Amino acid sequence: MDSYLIQVNGHGDHAPVLDVHLKTNGNSISLGKVKGRKPRWAVRASEMSKKTFNPVRAIVDSMKVEPNPKKAMISLSLGDPTVFGNLPTNDEVTRAMKEALDSGHYNGYAPSVGYQSCREAVAAYYNCPEAPLEAQDVILTSGCSQAIELALAVLANPGQNILVPRPGFSLYKTLALSMGIEVKLYNLLPEKAWEIDLEHLESLVDEKTACLIVNNPSNPCGSVFSKSHLQKILAVASRQCVPVLADEIYGDMVFADCKYEPIATLSTNVPILSCGGLAKRWLVPGWRMGWILIHDRRDIFGNEIRDGLVRLSQRILGPCTIVQGALERILHRTPPEFYHNTLSILKSNADLCYAALSAIPGLQPVQPAGAMYLMVEIEMEHFPEFENDVEFTERLISEQSVFCLPATCFEYPNFFRVVITVPEEMILEACSRIQEFCEMHYQGAEGAQDLECDK
Amino acid sequence: MDSYLIQVNGHGDHAPVLDVHLKTNGNSISLGKVKGRKPRWAVRASEMSKKTFNPVRAIVDSMKVEPNPKKAMISLSLGDPTVFGNLPTNDEVTRAMKEALDSGHYNGYAPSVGYQSCREAVAAYYNCPEAPLEAQDVILTSGCSQAIELALAVLANPGQNILVPRPGFSLYKTLALSMGIEVKLYNLLPEKAWEIDLEHLESLVDEKTACLIVNNPSNPCGSVFSKSHLQKILAVASRQCVPVLADEIYGDMVFADCKYEPIATLSTNVPILSCGGLAKRWLVPGWRMGWILIHDRRDIFGNEIRDGLVRLSQRILGPCTIVQGALERILHRTPPEFYHNTLSILKSNADLCYAALSAIPGLQPVQPAGAMYLMVEIEMEHFPEFENDVEFTERLISEQSVFCLPATCFEYPNFFRVVITVPEEMILEACSRIQEFCEMHYQGAEGAQDLECDK
Repeated sequence: MDSYLIQVNGHGDHAPVLDVHLKTNGNSISLGKVKGRKPRWAVRASEMSKKTFNPVRAIVDSMKVEPNPKKAMISLSLGDPTVFGNLPTNDEVTRAMKEALDSGHYNGYAPSVGYQSCREAVAAYYNCPEAPLEAQDVILTSGCSQAIELALAVLANPGQNILVPRPGFSLYKTLALSMGIEVKLYNLLPEKAWEIDLEHLESLVDEKTACLIVNNPSNPCGSVFSKSHLQKILAVASRQCVPVLADEIYGDMVFADCKYEPIATLSTNVPILSCGGLAKRWLVPGWRMGWILIHDRRDIFGNEIRDGLVRLSQRILGPCTIVQGALERILHRTPPEFYHNTLSILKSNADLCYAALSAIPGLQPVQPAGAMYLMVEIEMEHFPEFENDVEFTERLISEQSVFCLPATCFEYPNFFRVVITVPEEMILEACSRIQEFCEMHYQGAEGAQDLECDK
Repeated sequence: MDSYLIQVNGHGDHAPVLDVHLKTNGNSISLGKVKGRKPRWAVRASEMSKKTFNPVRAIVDSMKVEPNPKKAMISLSLGDPTVFGNLPTNDEVTRAMKEALDSGHYNGYAPSVGYQSCREAVAAYYNCPEAPLEAQDVILTSGCSQAIELALAVLANPGQNILVPRPGFSLYKTLALSMGIEVKLYNLLPEKAWEIDLEHLESLVDEKTACLIVNNPSNPCGSVFSKSHLQKILAVASRQCVPVLADEIYGDMVFADCKYEPIATLSTNVPILSCGGLAKRWLVPGWRMGWILIHDRRDIFGNEIRDGLVRLSQRILGPCTIVQGALERILHRTPPEFYHNTLSILKSNADLCYAALSAIPGLQPVQPAGAMYLMVEIEMEHFPEFENDVEFTERLISEQSVFCLPATCFEYPNFFRVVITVPEEMILEACSRIQEFCEMHYQGAEGAQDLECDK
């Protein structure tokens, strides 16, 4: 799942018509009964729709992006691994879909939480002794976005708050604000490979805190928490009695030298809703197959949260039944080499990119350990021409036709995010253009001072 | 789309653990900063999840349903045309899906409102001179349920009200109550083939009325509004300046002797959000492909409602991209005979069912003209054994193993709904059992009085 899909809505040419139709009530069949009749049309968008706000969209839309016509555009901005065709899904995945289609058994309504057999398949796939799962612990959703939406909707009331990582995926804020839930940002520490500033995290908890969102592996950081760090996070949640919403959509997507620990496997008491899906690991984000895994061994969520999730799932029903029908086969038949291959490409791209960007004056990339991203610090003092990361990335487009997302999109100014799912040659070309760009604009300590004096 | 999917959640065996973990704060790393720390676990489901309430579920769950073990169960309760295998989707529909899969082009994220090409295809399919449509007027959604959800969410604020048909599809109420929107029920008139009681409708409008839901063809009634009746509905909306949310998921599903008019084709000024999808006409309700068509020729919705819909769509993104990839071909390649065949089966079943039930003492079926349903009045005075429609249908299950949904599920007591998508032989067998049941329990005027005296 990702937030920064840039859309063109194309209704700018919808010229307003000024002669809005006003009807008088002269021939009303029931004039006497009508109370407080509206005298004229006044259809306004709801408060909720106005509060639903995608910060990435707002920032990207405000960028004046005219790529350099002499250079082909390279976009390192979209967290969609399918864009360049270098990371196709596995044939077994496609085959499973065709079998589901051919069976004719998956065209009707499924239960709103998903077919029982699919819930069993997901439970069996993620079940482990430390965090046992049964079908009843699985809710299938329309993508991981809906998983997060349902989890937030069941845990938090308007006026409560949730704890969200900074930098972090913008959907948490979009969903929370649309529901009237306050967002409190806790810091991740780039100098500690984006571990959570636990003291800061704990300081944010108050009596209105409804849950703690832990995103591991991380978008946008590409970081992966160690077992001991996850245990410390759980210790905070346990002390403060705050349930965890784990966004684990990049679960298992970690490089060979690193281990992924689902947070639920380390918890003896903290109740956890773990959100995941097929999107990233199986490289089919458009199919909208997500899930919530309910971990609640102390019965703290109890039936109340479970029943709430079931009720909320009935609002729009679950994911496409063809994908549900294919799910068990997708989970069981996808060969291990497929996952290894994806990760070795990502690791190789990450290493290339990290090495190339490390050598560029004024940039400080942070080495990733998983997911599909890399964050790069811009030493702004060496680029006095640019106000901030938005201006830096804007100019990178106009001069070099390279598009990286400014990390202001993730509430983290003076960094930008690089997507590492693109083909190797594009990564290299992009890095070389970024180098040219930085060399052009870099000001050493002296230069920067000179420019400061010129002002 | 349908509301009465009966689910087994199966978490009754989740025994509560009483030793809920209580942590003291002895070793907090930031004791001083923590304000109002929670002393103990108290995770409650949100108000919204508690307000999300499916009345069908509640009624059906409360029924003590033990079918007669000597008779095979016949369920006429599920509005899912795929259940019995007699109404498969068309091969072209399946083929279009396989082509979309094989292309490999539809695995990534689509824009949250759907691919531009799909929006164009839907616009072209439903475009007509009286109600022109362009791609920008189409929002693709995860089933018609999400279409209705987004339409309500953009039009109404908590505290406002919406006008909903009685009898009517229960999802309107489920969604509205979950959003804190009040539901005002306007009457349909069985004696007028379920036309709207326009006077009653207009009397319900007040300054807080956000929209009028018009469901045509109707679930649960199987009724189809005439052009002139639709014009009268629009006249009310126009006089009262209330926008229309048209649930047209059964659009075009009308029997040969009747014509379906999309309400937007008759409106010169009333702004309309028309909700539809593939579910019923293409017989694939599980695929979750729905849409909103925005009709706003006087620019009363304007950009505000359009932008609101786009923003709301970004919360969970749109429908499965494989179905999107297949959509244009589904719309263009499905042969006309497929639709005709479905309708002739439905019409034939409707006629058989209507004729059979009309002959049964104490029942008054209302002849349908489209969709997949038939409503039957129970002359309760002739069945003094039964308190209401719920008890009547309950006993019909336990004695005859025939399951019809009591119309209390649709806010309309003393009726039941019959689904006419089942195979002919099952319809006939069900009708014959209903006859046996009614003959067993029917009391003529005298008998009823006798029983009354016995009490």
